Amino acid sequence: MAEHDEQLTLEGRNAVLEGIRAGMNIERVYIQENLHDQVLFQIEKEARKAGIRTVIVPKAKLEKMSRTGKTQGVVAELQSWTYYEVEDLLKEAEKRGEKPFLFLLDGIEDPHNLGAIIRTANLAGAHGVIIPKNRSAGLNATVARTSAGAVNYTRVARVSNLARTIEELKEKGLWFVSADMDGTPMYDLDLRGAIGLVIGSEGNGVSRIVREKCDFTASIPMKGDIDSLNASVAAGVLAYEIVRQRLGK
Amino acid sequence: MAEHDEQLTLEGRNAVLEGIRAGMNIERVYIQENLHDQVLFQIEKEARKAGIRTVIVPKAKLEKMSRTGKTQGVVAELQSWTYYEVEDLLKEAEKRGEKPFLFLLDGIEDPHNLGAIIRTANLAGAHGVIIPKNRSAGLNATVARTSAGAVNYTRVARVSNLARTIEELKEKGLWFVSADMDGTPMYDLDLRGAIGLVIGSEGNGVSRIVREKCDFTASIPMKGDIDSLNASVAAGVLAYEIVRQRLGK
Repeated sequence: MAEHDEQLTLEGRNAVLEGIRAGMNIERVYIQENLHDQVLFQIEKEARKAGIRTVIVPKAKLEKMSRTGKTQGVVAELQSWTYYEVEDLLKEAEKRGEKPFLFLLDGIEDPHNLGAIIRTANLAGAHGVIIPKNRSAGLNATVARTSAGAVNYTRVARVSNLARTIEELKEKGLWFVSADMDGTPMYDLDLRGAIGLVIGSEGNGVSRIVREKCDFTASIPMKGDIDSLNASVAAGVLAYEIVRQRLGK
Repeated sequence: MAEHDEQLTLEGRNAVLEGIRAGMNIERVYIQENLHDQVLFQIEKEARKAGIRTVIVPKAKLEKMSRTGKTQGVVAELQSWTYYEVEDLLKEAEKRGEKPFLFLLDGIEDPHNLGAIIRTANLAGAHGVIIPKNRSAGLNATVARTSAGAVNYTRVARVSNLARTIEELKEKGLWFVSADMDGTPMYDLDLRGAIGLVIGSEGNGVSRIVREKCDFTASIPMKGDIDSLNASVAAGVLAYEIVRQRLGK
């Protein structure tokens, strides 16, 4: 069962034109019929060039779509984002006949990092990404763009309490490994089983309450002068250690 | 021999205050003496809070620093960035008694990616990063910030022609591996020697002319629905395959 976020719209000539130019995730542009206006022509032209479908509609339809009542003859419908249930992620693993491989993100607040991690999850063959409802970036146009479209394939579940979700998933046979520089070198852990990879926030790492629920702590060897990798890079390096072990390389 | 970029300044009350608030990489704030002004007090307060050194100076000194002649009593000196020569990167390897391990970035234009890659290069124990002068992000405050300070430790060289630099380094015994999805799985390559890891641009990958100079092409196994990892994630995954092989894990 998927939960849909509220459908959003851009309304008015400037808002729509800027939305197109900013690369916002626009599903469709609705333009009022019989309005021969230069800016509307421009919007139509740029929308087509950006691969966005444009539809000519009667004034009444446009007004019905409007939240503000001030459409100036144009409304853009933004793509809505779908969150899945944790159960759906496990079903994906079952469908593929694979041991579950999930990402759990404990407070990633930068949408670019969230997008890059969803992209990595997709390519590393994970079955989904779990994020908390609070203190976390959610799905939006920036995340979609930086995910390079992976949000359309890799399921994202949003939960109220990450620690409780970990407990529930442990009962279903998953093991949890969190990333931390004080952990066991990742090469020395057996990461081939049903696994949840827990990545902490940029600033604070994995929170204590979540870390205590994990079975292992894995560290990436670090030779340098600074503290830690970028969160999405760390997620990539750890995910690919899991991939390597699963491939038996 | 290091090449210094021109020292830049912010001048005027608004410019400096906004620079501090935007987290620009400000080395020092110079405030004119005997000017009892509310905005200057505010600048001094916020600079201190941001950990930026403030210096009270005579009017003549401030005017000497100014490029515009319009200081309004305040000038902020921005940190300048130092580029090294390729030779300096090799010396770093020699100093550490290690086989050279360099990153070469063929057209990374996003400063966030450049910063994240310099951060990764630092932690993976690489001896430096080589970027081209054209069609590439250069060092700036955004790069410094996303590198988490790694720009202060990991040397960056800027060259006119990446393909020629590769040729010159090959004569010094380095092997070059470029990242490409059509390459040999990275686990099947021997990456333990003196190595240059070539990462392509987000949009276009490694350019043909650079790829042809490389000895190997390495691919990261990809199971997903989309094309490629984020450039900085791909750089991290490949760099850590090199680390793993060098550690004999």
